[in-house]
Amino acid sequence: MGRFGSAEAVLAALPEIARRGGRARPLAIASKAAAERELAALAAIGAKLIGWCEPHYPAALAAIEDAPPLIAVLGQPHLLERRAIAVVGARNASGNGRRFARDIALQLGQHGLVVVSGLARGIDAAAHEGSLPTGSIAVLAGGIDQVYPEENRALHEAIAERGVLMAEMPVGTEPQARHFPRRNRIISGCALGVLVVEAAQRSGSLITARYALDQGREVFAVPGSPLDPRCRGTNDLIRKGATLVESAEDIMAELAPHFATPLAERRREMFVGAPAGLPSDDDLAAARQQVVNLLSPSPLAVDELVRQCHLSPAIVVTVLLELELAGRIERQPGNQVSLL
Amino acid sequence: MGRFGSAEAVLAALPEIARRGGRARPLAIASKAAAERELAALAAIGAKLIGWCEPHYPAALAAIEDAPPLIAVLGQPHLLERRAIAVVGARNASGNGRRFARDIALQLGQHGLVVVSGLARGIDAAAHEGSLPTGSIAVLAGGIDQVYPEENRALHEAIAERGVLMAEMPVGTEPQARHFPRRNRIISGCALGVLVVEAAQRSGSLITARYALDQGREVFAVPGSPLDPRCRGTNDLIRKGATLVESAEDIMAELAPHFATPLAERRREMFVGAPAGLPSDDDLAAARQQVVNLLSPSPLAVDELVRQCHLSPAIVVTVLLELELAGRIERQPGNQVSLL
Repeated sequence: MGRFGSAEAVLAALPEIARRGGRARPLAIASKAAAERELAALAAIGAKLIGWCEPHYPAALAAIEDAPPLIAVLGQPHLLERRAIAVVGARNASGNGRRFARDIALQLGQHGLVVVSGLARGIDAAAHEGSLPTGSIAVLAGGIDQVYPEENRALHEAIAERGVLMAEMPVGTEPQARHFPRRNRIISGCALGVLVVEAAQRSGSLITARYALDQGREVFAVPGSPLDPRCRGTNDLIRKGATLVESAEDIMAELAPHFATPLAERRREMFVGAPAGLPSDDDLAAARQQVVNLLSPSPLAVDELVRQCHLSPAIVVTVLLELELAGRIERQPGNQVSLL
Repeated sequence: MGRFGSAEAVLAALPEIARRGGRARPLAIASKAAAERELAALAAIGAKLIGWCEPHYPAALAAIEDAPPLIAVLGQPHLLERRAIAVVGARNASGNGRRFARDIALQLGQHGLVVVSGLARGIDAAAHEGSLPTGSIAVLAGGIDQVYPEENRALHEAIAERGVLMAEMPVGTEPQARHFPRRNRIISGCALGVLVVEAAQRSGSLITARYALDQGREVFAVPGSPLDPRCRGTNDLIRKGATLVESAEDIMAELAPHFATPLAERRREMFVGAPAGLPSDDDLAAARQQVVNLLSPSPLAVDELVRQCHLSPAIVVTVLLELELAGRIERQPGNQVSLL
């Protein structure tokens, strides 16, 4: 927008940017009719799109590196303006784990926090149940109209009414395995911190905790018996520095210092250090091959890339955008990129 | 011994030291006959006394501030020369807690560590059971001949044969509540670290962990569900910095650096910084009232006392010995003293 002046000019420029990044087939931009069909489908179920630049877009989510430009929401959007904590965990949770998740979600709500989770079986569902009276946000992996899993249909409907359903994928998209990690970055991104209640090693909840770390959010974990494999992941998080949580007070003690900063300030922080000028076409032409040479299939941090190629961040970011639109690189957690 | 030249001269001097400390009734030193009766009683059950200065006295125990001058031992004294880990915990332990204690004690034994515990019900008993094949030391609160609790009689006898029973109190002494904290300092004192498996808040196991910290030993704790009050103490230890333990490997990873230092070196470390000269009677006379004035019923660290009264450590320590023999002060954990 800064470079091209208007949304219309940006859309017109995208195919050329992708071509410069090395894209073989021309990039197809969605037609106006397709966009209007999607807006109508959302309106038909009472949902709406919120853009990154709009006031209702969650301030904490706006601050992450790869914030979704648009999110679909359904329910009580005023909840998006409140401070949030994510509560996630194992799908095959124990009865005690579910009970703990439900109780602490309620207590966190009573402390004024909205609870964010992923509406999965087990811990996620329990966290939503506990927080429905005080504020519950469910971030879906598929489209906002997709109920998944089927057993959570009643909860899905209750959240659509009393809480907020949120989705990045277009309406009608069935949730697929590859959507879940991307969805998890939104769960942590909406929150000041992520509480993990029961998680096996190498589980999705640990991916969410990893995103939280990358996003500069707090990580909280509930300890459990070493004899229960469902506690391996949480015990390991504690060993690596996550805050041990036995009660809502343990979380509030850690988050209280953040409360001094109004949530809205986080948005403004994003613009601190933004590039003063925009790169010229000559600059970009000189930079392209240098950036590509430094990339490989192993993820490389963008910061490290900027250091190694001695170019301005604005140039590197623009070249990466070209390569991404060309389908030649993939974004990875922690602001890393890898060559496809 | 350094001041008076021989054990005989020390015994002769003690009543006078106590009198100078303000003792009203003369201090009665045990008669030669009483001492011989105690030695005979120990010999009759196959036990013997080991002095702080003797080679079999555990090196780690010798290094603590208030090491017992004499310990009675029964069993396989060669175990006292090996590196040890304490495993302690709740008497009303869960079945899972007992199982965990037994298994990890066996694994620690297989890693070459002797396991020290207090032969209480629950976790202590399980730790001894697990470590009997590889090396188990039970530190008793009463005399070495006292079986307590009665349900651990078979275990007591098995340790007397295959492990080591150890006691600071004279043979025949029935264990009383006040003996247990003193005993706990010996459990941690014998060990490189203390592992706490299940412990409620304000429990004896936490006292042992506190001693371990004061003695510069490692503290390990097994995490557990926040819903089980028997895990409150261990979770709290982890929150305060204890190493989270799910397996013997977690302990070995932490202790391995210590293994580079031969155990015997710890004894020599004690003499580093020992006072060069001995205080004169004039010095002591001038110091007495000053020390007493600084003391109160609240425990005060001896180091702090030395700093505040601007006297040499040798003088302060001698005055404190006088006051202790006079029954006017009490030693507290962490090298602290309080006025009675």
